[in-house]
Amino acid sequence: MDHDVEKYYTTCMKLVNKAAEVIETAFYKTKQVESKSCDMDLVTETDKEVEKLLIDGLHLAFPDHKFIGEESTAGGEKCILTDAPTWIIDPVDGTMNFVHSLPLIAISIGLLINKKPIIGIICNPILKQTYTAKDGQGAFLNGTKIKVSGETVLAKALIATESGTNDDPAKIEVVLKNLGALLGKCHGTRSLGSAAMNLASVASGGCDAYYEMGLHAWDMAAGQLIVEEAGGTVIDTTGGEFDLMSRRVVCASSEKLAKDIASRLTQYEMERD
Amino acid sequence: MDHDVEKYYTTCMKLVNKAAEVIETAFYKTKQVESKSCDMDLVTETDKEVEKLLIDGLHLAFPDHKFIGEESTAGGEKCILTDAPTWIIDPVDGTMNFVHSLPLIAISIGLLINKKPIIGIICNPILKQTYTAKDGQGAFLNGTKIKVSGETVLAKALIATESGTNDDPAKIEVVLKNLGALLGKCHGTRSLGSAAMNLASVASGGCDAYYEMGLHAWDMAAGQLIVEEAGGTVIDTTGGEFDLMSRRVVCASSEKLAKDIASRLTQYEMERD
Repeated sequence: MDHDVEKYYTTCMKLVNKAAEVIETAFYKTKQVESKSCDMDLVTETDKEVEKLLIDGLHLAFPDHKFIGEESTAGGEKCILTDAPTWIIDPVDGTMNFVHSLPLIAISIGLLINKKPIIGIICNPILKQTYTAKDGQGAFLNGTKIKVSGETVLAKALIATESGTNDDPAKIEVVLKNLGALLGKCHGTRSLGSAAMNLASVASGGCDAYYEMGLHAWDMAAGQLIVEEAGGTVIDTTGGEFDLMSRRVVCASSEKLAKDIASRLTQYEMERD
Repeated sequence: MDHDVEKYYTTCMKLVNKAAEVIETAFYKTKQVESKSCDMDLVTETDKEVEKLLIDGLHLAFPDHKFIGEESTAGGEKCILTDAPTWIIDPVDGTMNFVHSLPLIAISIGLLINKKPIIGIICNPILKQTYTAKDGQGAFLNGTKIKVSGETVLAKALIATESGTNDDPAKIEVVLKNLGALLGKCHGTRSLGSAAMNLASVASGGCDAYYEMGLHAWDMAAGQLIVEEAGGTVIDTTGGEFDLMSRRVVCASSEKLAKDIASRLTQYEMERD
């Protein structure tokens, strides 16, 4: 079956622009909400509203396409990735930042066909940054071509990673062990609090690498393609091939750097998506 | 002696706007520089150029004012803070981010008179965010009044901190120990890679707290006033009174949260500014 990727892309971008307006309005509103628990409710509402807007719009245009969305799977169902065109959607990546009004948040949408990434869109409505990629056509920030830094040397690398929100002592131990394995050996570490923004920053050369364990498919689907189309490498934290459902990622500006970082990481076992 | 704070402020803001243009131009240029060592040289040039622009301009307008600047003291001289009006300047806070083209950078300028913070300006030329404060007159982001989140509970707090660029194993041990003392007990941690941006994010409610050891006076002078004028608390990492020359800071949206965090921190000994 032939796929009109250009049509998929333009239809999706129109919806992303609408969704960006919803998020921008909600982002500035949250600052007036006093109670944190209300903030939380509001975020969930925004998450749901944006995901519905995106899925309804895409479903109307492409009735045979499938969807995996953060909110849709919040009930605990497993994600099932088939060969059908599948939109993998995080309506607001960096929810904790959103709650706290820290503007490092993004809409993250990836389209996979035959399980292969075809379209990736990461849009930060507050910082007005839209990162896009189509398979084989390069990666762009607000329409301008971007590329990874090309850094290969760990000692010169700025590495994004996250300490997570987990209160499991075993997970925290692994997080600290991995940070300890890299501090003093790299240029520095950053934690932006949004997987999509971390991936986008590797794609545009802002960071040289990013690793994390405990992610979900919707955190990585768009970013994987954008990093790869920007010339970067995306692998598993074990050093093997990247697996979107594995909840783990190392991406870097070069294969050498990605493998170097992976070789220093202790693994943390999690249930697959 | 009477001080025309409004004149000091408007004169400084004019210079900051000029400096912002210089940084913005240099920021986008660095992306075309291929070698990291050249990037480093370029950054140093931008740092020096911006600091000269700011100090020359302020010195011309206010010949009796004193200056403490990151570049001016790079030779290793000690900072001497007297009662004279003293501008404390970091021309590009977040130099590592600047080198890597990660847009979390800022011009940071504080004016102290009788060792008391009177004016604070943090300007991010890339994200177009200018945080300002004058003693007793509140804090502002792009002219709109801001306030801290008011959070008092550690379990709900998003905390900014930095792992640093230090390769001293003793420092890294303290960094990891402190992170370990907070992970799982707070909402999450962030590392933006710029002390000024971390302080600004606490002032605007984006983060609830920020702590770091190993800073310098020019990293904190502007941010201290902006956080305090936004209703936040700035103290020493030992829990005592804040000391601009101590190279340590805990700031938070409330005194309760600041003291709670300080009480959990292991100290790292450093030479004073």
